[in-house]
Formats: sequence, C-alpha cells, structure tokens
Amino acid sequence: MTGTPRWALAIHGGAGTVRREDLTPEVERAYLDALGVVLAAGESVLAGGGSALDAVEAAVVVFEDSPLFNCGRGAVFTADGRIELDAAIMDGRTLEAGAVAAVRHVRNPVRLARAVLERSPHVLLVAEGAEAFAREEGIALVDPGYFWTARRWDQLVATRRALGEDVTSLSEDTRFDPGAAMPVPDDRSTDTVGAVALDAAGHLAAATSTGGLTNKRPGRVGDSAIIGAGTYADDRTCAVSATGVGEAIMRVVVAHEVAARMRHGGQTLEQAADEAILHALVRVGGAGSGGLVAVDPQGRVVMPFNSEGMYRGCVVDGAARVVGIHRTLAEPPAR
Amino acid sequence: MTGTPRWALAIHGGAGTVRREDLTPEVERAYLDALGVVLAAGESVLAGGGSALDAVEAAVVVFEDSPLFNCGRGAVFTADGRIELDAAIMDGRTLEAGAVAAVRHVRNPVRLARAVLERSPHVLLVAEGAEAFAREEGIALVDPGYFWTARRWDQLVATRRALGEDVTSLSEDTRFDPGAAMPVPDDRSTDTVGAVALDAAGHLAAATSTGGLTNKRPGRVGDSAIIGAGTYADDRTCAVSATGVGEAIMRVVVAHEVAARMRHGGQTLEQAADEAILHALVRVGGAGSGGLVAVDPQGRVVMPFNSEGMYRGCVVDGAARVVGIHRTLAEPPAR
Repeated sequence: MTGTPRWALAIHGGAGTVRREDLTPEVERAYLDALGVVLAAGESVLAGGGSALDAVEAAVVVFEDSPLFNCGRGAVFTADGRIELDAAIMDGRTLEAGAVAAVRHVRNPVRLARAVLERSPHVLLVAEGAEAFAREEGIALVDPGYFWTARRWDQLVATRRALGEDVTSLSEDTRFDPGAAMPVPDDRSTDTVGAVALDAAGHLAAATSTGGLTNKRPGRVGDSAIIGAGTYADDRTCAVSATGVGEAIMRVVVAHEVAARMRHGGQTLEQAADEAILHALVRVGGAGSGGLVAVDPQGRVVMPFNSEGMYRGCVVDGAARVVGIHRTLAEPPAR
Repeated sequence: MTGTPRWALAIHGGAGTVRREDLTPEVERAYLDALGVVLAAGESVLAGGGSALDAVEAAVVVFEDSPLFNCGRGAVFTADGRIELDAAIMDGRTLEAGAVAAVRHVRNPVRLARAVLERSPHVLLVAEGAEAFAREEGIALVDPGYFWTARRWDQLVATRRALGEDVTSLSEDTRFDPGAAMPVPDDRSTDTVGAVALDAAGHLAAATSTGGLTNKRPGRVGDSAIIGAGTYADDRTCAVSATGVGEAIMRVVVAHEVAARMRHGGQTLEQAADEAILHALVRVGGAGSGGLVAVDPQGRVVMPFNSEGMYRGCVVDGAARVVGIHRTLAEPPAR
C-alpha cells in the first residue's frame, strides 16, 4: 500500500508477561481469532465511512463481550470477590471525553463512557452515581453473575492464598460461566483493552476498558478511566490507548505525554510513543508490562510495548488485518 | 530580594466570577485573612526546612478546615443533598501521587490522599473503598453534619429551584453550622483550593482539594483528583494546582500540559502557564473561571487566571506574604 490511508485502526488486549511457552497453540489461536473479530468490528465502521468514535466503541464492545480479556465479561475480581470496571472514550475532533470507574453492573462500560461523553456535561462518573446514570440512559445492566468466570475466580483465590489472605469470606456471586472451559494463560498478560482509530474524515478517537487488577482494593481506579493517562485523543497529534501498571501510567500521564511530545517537542508518533513506553514509563516502575497503541492523522500506527508481548492488531484502509502477541504480526487465523 | 529563593509557596482558593461589588469589605478581609493563615501554615514548614510535600498538605488542611472555601468543611452539596469530596497530592521528587474522590466522611481529604501516596500501592481510590482505606489508616472521619453550612445549603436549594428541580426530597443531614453567620459572596468564585511549593532541598510538590460543583450529580469527579489535570508535580519542570471548570481542565490535562510545554517545548513557567490557562483551557469552554498556581525549581511563582479574580497568595524565602482576589496583591490584613 502506498500513500496515506483513508482510515486506520489499532487495538490491544493488554501487555504483560505473555511467555510463548505458556500459550498452547489452541489458546494462542483463540486469542488471535478474537483479535481479528475485534478488528473486523471496528473496520466495518471505518470502511463504511463511520466515525473513529463509533469504531473504537464497536471494537471495545467486542473485547468487553469476550471472556478472554480483562474487561467486561472477562474481568478479574476485587479483593472482596466483586467486579469493578473502568472505561474511557475520547473524541479527538472536539476533545470531548467520557469515562466511568468502579462500576459493578454495567455490561459494556465503554458504552456508558460514551453516554457520559455525549449526554452529560461531565467527563468522569464513578461507582453508584455512574450506575444511576446508566439506568437513566438505558445502558444495559447485568447481574454480577454475568461476570463470574471460573478462571478469574481461581486467579483471585490463588492470589489471596499466595499473599496469606483470607479466602473463606469472599462473597461469591451466582455462578454463570459458559466460558469456564476455555483454557487460558496467566492473567498478568491481559490487564486492559483498547482501540484507537483515524476515520475517513480525518478525525481521531481512543477508547480503553479494564477490570483492573486481580485482588485489587475496592475503589482502586487505574489509568484506563483517566483522560491523559490511559486514554487520549487530539486531532492535532494522535489517539492513544495504554496498558500496563496503571499507577505508573498515571504518574507519567502516558497518553497525554505522547501527544505533548508531538505537539510541543516536534517528535514523530513513533519517537513520542517509544519515549513514553520505553523510557518515561520504565522510570517510574512501569517496566515489563507496559504498552500502547496509537495512530496519527496520517494513519501511521504504532504499538510499542516493554513487555515480552502484547495482544494487539491493526488494519489500515487497503491492507489486510494483522494480529500478534509476541514480536511478529500476521493475518488472523481463518475462521 | 535577589537571587534564587531557598523555598517558595503559592496557594489558590478558587478562581471565578468574583466581582468586586459582591465583596463587602468585611468579607474581603475575612478571605484575605484566611489566605494569610494558609500561607503561614505552609511557610512554617518550608522555613523550618520541611518538605514541599508537607508544606502543601499543611496549607490545604487549613483550607479544608475553613468554612469559607469549597473543600472540606465548606464544601458544596450534591444534587441529593450530600457532600462528595475530591483531593490529590503529588511529590515532584519521585512522581509519586495519591488521590481520593467522592468521599463523604473524610474531614481532610488531602490527608487521605497523602496516605494513598505513602501507604498504598495505588494512586486513586474512590467512594466507599477510599473511606475503608481511611478507616484502616486512622484518618479522621466525621459525621455528614460536620460539613453542613447554611450558606451551601441555601446555594443548593436556590440552584435547584432555578433549574426547576425538586427540593422537597433532599435529605438534609443534621445541622451543625458554627460558620452560618458568616456573610459570603456567590459560590461560583470558590470552586477548588490548592497549593504548590519548592522546598530548600530543591523538591517540588502540589496538592488540590475540592467539594466540586453545587448540585453536582453524585459520583461526578472533576479535575482536582486527577493527576495531570488539576494536580501535577515534577522536579524537572514545575508543580501545578489548577482551578476552574473541572471538565475543561480534564480535557486539556492542564497541569501536565504546563509541565510538558516546559520540558518538551522549552517554554518558561510563565509562558507555559499562560498558554495553558489563557489559550488551551479557553478553547474547550474553560473561559471565565480558570486559573492555576505553579512554581518551578528556581522558585519562580506564577498565578494566572482567565476569570475576574482568583483567591490566591504566595510567599518566598526572604519576602513578605502577599494575597489577593482581583488583579492586585498586597500583604494580608493584620490579625
């Protein structure tokens, strides 16, 4: 492909210590296939002339409905055996943004973040207040059992046992686990999902969604819901969705740092993203699990990470979808 | 004073539409006196060789204990007649940060933010989870009645009546209002408080605290608790605490924008702060009520605002305290 693509999309399903030997061929294929489906969802919006904002929402909804990734349906459990989800979305055209944090019953937190962006004067709503807004706006709410997966529950119990913490008092919600038979690798590799897009009208958008950390303290909010940290989009520079140790990402304001390096430092997208992930983030303890996906107004895509792997993929107008977990990228498996 | 000061401190008690004709001499004097007391609290830390982090916490605690400012004791009410407080603190030496949002019973949210910074692995805790952490850490909790002031209640009722919203169902907590006799100007002028400091060891810190907006939706979190938006500190550039329309500040990530303009764009503190407040913030609807205080490693202090006034003050080693509301600054009234 030559010239500037009309549109572009990049996604991630979390960075971290995905060691190749932990992935059976069956599991790897399931992840690569899922990444392909996420790309297809966003691509169908962009190829049809839809907006970047619609595309990143559509892509993240597919992530949230999958039990494979740590967001929505497949989210990890908090220290008290519950689910608390964070998400954000931002429109690079207007700098409008919406985010939610610590919600427990929202099937697709990115849809609620979109509603905050479009139908409230606010940027961030948290906890019960965010869920009250969801009810007003007709956003789908689900019972806690919807989020229950054996894999995540076992991870919580194993994590707490390893820390010498009580596991008998955990309130296990009603089991509902169609995805429980799926064999999966260590969850450290799947900490967040996100998408960034350039649309045919030249606008950028970014969205991020997460279940946070296994055994996290209730009320802990990471970078995903923080505009500037895990999520940022500005038509003048780039759209960014980050993943990794949330606290480190927040302290160096990674997504806005990439945009600021481009706008004030004259760096390219690639330089800015590499500096943010490989230097700024590492300096504050974000080594080994950090990454991001980003796109600029020319449709250039970067997907740097400082971990062994990152679930990721991209597609630009006129080229095939590519997905990958470790260093190499390839077309997703045939369905 | 000549040369580089050993230490410096700047504070704000909110920017906004403080019209001179709304301020009686009595009220103006009360505010200027309070600003002087806040400065004295931070100054005593810095002049004694204490850290910037201790100084900004000490200053903000005085703000939080005063009924005059929209934070802690004097916070505004939410749409359901409750109090929800946000605060953040950041150490420019390490980039460590702590923040809390939507807490209802914490007497000094900045102290809880400091505990998050020092005694948790996290940056942001919200709602009930944040209060659970406060209990574990022995942070002072108070009954909701502690925050009840006639002035703020009347503002809520007046705001809701003006919007045609119900006022009969508001749950009014037990009254406890020693400050109710104090005449005060329109609350639009007092939306946030904050402090920034340089200490004698050359380190920077920032802290911000707020009650948010009168009649705000429960669960709404503004810029104050967001690292990068309302609060940021980095020894390489500056410490910043912002005030104004929280959503606009979040969308342009004001505090980190100032730091990024200095680090990547080579701007001075004054250029960077002016650009952020007078241009970037105004572009997204933050005109008329935005401002910030900032200090750099050379002890330069700036306090720009795009509103008619901002409650503010500063003191640097070797010079007298100065405070002001409108364009001019003067020494605080004698006590």
